[in-house]
Amino acid sequence: MKILVPATSANLGPGFDCLGLSLGLFNEIEIYKSNVSSLSVSGEGSDNIHLKKNNIFIQIFNEIYQKLSGQKNHFRFIFKNNIPLSRGLGSSSATIVGAIVGAYAMSGFKIEKEKILNEALNYETHPDNIAPAILGGFVCSIVEENKVYSIKKDIDENLRAIIVIPDAIMNTEQSREALPANLSLSDCVFNLSHSSFLTACFLEKKYELLALASKDKLHQMQRMKNLPELFEVQKFALENKALMSTLSGSGSSFFSLVYKENVNFFIQKMTQKFSNFRIECLEFDNKGFEIC
Amino acid sequence: MKILVPATSANLGPGFDCLGLSLGLFNEIEIYKSNVSSLSVSGEGSDNIHLKKNNIFIQIFNEIYQKLSGQKNHFRFIFKNNIPLSRGLGSSSATIVGAIVGAYAMSGFKIEKEKILNEALNYETHPDNIAPAILGGFVCSIVEENKVYSIKKDIDENLRAIIVIPDAIMNTEQSREALPANLSLSDCVFNLSHSSFLTACFLEKKYELLALASKDKLHQMQRMKNLPELFEVQKFALENKALMSTLSGSGSSFFSLVYKENVNFFIQKMTQKFSNFRIECLEFDNKGFEIC
Repeated sequence: MKILVPATSANLGPGFDCLGLSLGLFNEIEIYKSNVSSLSVSGEGSDNIHLKKNNIFIQIFNEIYQKLSGQKNHFRFIFKNNIPLSRGLGSSSATIVGAIVGAYAMSGFKIEKEKILNEALNYETHPDNIAPAILGGFVCSIVEENKVYSIKKDIDENLRAIIVIPDAIMNTEQSREALPANLSLSDCVFNLSHSSFLTACFLEKKYELLALASKDKLHQMQRMKNLPELFEVQKFALENKALMSTLSGSGSSFFSLVYKENVNFFIQKMTQKFSNFRIECLEFDNKGFEIC
Repeated sequence: MKILVPATSANLGPGFDCLGLSLGLFNEIEIYKSNVSSLSVSGEGSDNIHLKKNNIFIQIFNEIYQKLSGQKNHFRFIFKNNIPLSRGLGSSSATIVGAIVGAYAMSGFKIEKEKILNEALNYETHPDNIAPAILGGFVCSIVEENKVYSIKKDIDENLRAIIVIPDAIMNTEQSREALPANLSLSDCVFNLSHSSFLTACFLEKKYELLALASKDKLHQMQRMKNLPELFEVQKFALENKALMSTLSGSGSSFFSLVYKENVNFFIQKMTQKFSNFRIECLEFDNKGFEIC
């Protein structure tokens, strides 16, 4: 059995811990029943010993597989990782979602997206990456009593995500520690109004208003100080036809939304200016994980 | 010429200063060119001497009429006020919007909603009441460089607003002073996620999720302490088929959203329990101000 789980970009400016969207870049996981346990890893992180010795995917898979089936079995896992690690592109969420979906599928349980979503919340405190990895598209989520409530909207086919990926990683926990403990009332109102308006822009497909909607006073500035060139990335992107340009998750990647017709122009400009960063053009994913 | 301007309910729980909706309760204003200036007031506030001596509507009307037409003229104003004053139902915004629309119409200028909205922002700092008074329906707004950006959605015909109106007034400025200067990061994230989700509920017509979406940690509790019976109103409303129940604007009115089929049940319950409060059932308005 093969599972595809998409990369995701969360926060999206003001929408801290609640907004996210799904990108057309997938980790591929093959799982087969076997007489002996084995795993192989290729792609992103394949040189990382921890992915082999202490594989989080397999830990979660085993935990849920045993819970659902009441059995311990051997499996062969083949990981093809396309989502960069620790770059704010939802690689952890993809691991969690993939493991849960795999365990449900291999134990013969019905795959219900709502169930997968609530199971995933046991492994990730915030819903902003797991929800789009499961549902696809643009997703707005809240959590109430350990249950995720999400509203999803497809993203138009004529849009592309341009991801600027620095070499430097940002650790989510450390990145979170950079945040202020308190905010002024006016900054809080700024973020809640902009996050609401950004949600409305995606739901009503008013993409032209996203540059205004995506402004943030809560997390981006503090985090971007760790890699100041990102301020230039954002400014330059918005000056060169990006509809919005925001830190992806807790960074270090930067997400820009661009009309398909402007992709070549945009990439050319960005490549000239930021030759030290990897730049990827991705379609959006409107389906979430898939079992092939 | 006759203008109808709707009452509005703003904030809507977490959506402080940015969300609002338009109610089917209208102030009616007739304006006629005349040889002498005169005004008559009936309905809400007709016993208030300030509405006659120092009428804000007429001040704004004259200012804009003179700006547009370059002339000073005499007019006869006939006000029929149906929107209760200082109860958080947008009576000030209705006055501002009515005066601007009246001045544009009487000076022969084209009525463009976007223009009226930005003109109105000169008289009211926040867009959450003026935007629905102008556009109708549910509206999410942000302000950028003295310009309002709004996204609007019609509210379904099978819904009703039940407004509980206490005798006590709440002054907006005093009510605003009760708010905290700072918020914890977690409260801020709570409000921005819920306000975004509430926006998504109205835009995608997922009204069943509004009870969760409409929770707030920013303003309601502090303000409701001035009239503690409102805590009971909210709790009782949610226990008796209200889809959401929130302080209307800065109070003192309470707004509940109810399916049309539950209106009789709801009103009967509320009337029994809160016999000291005026209770009104209103349709929603999806058009905003009208010139008849």
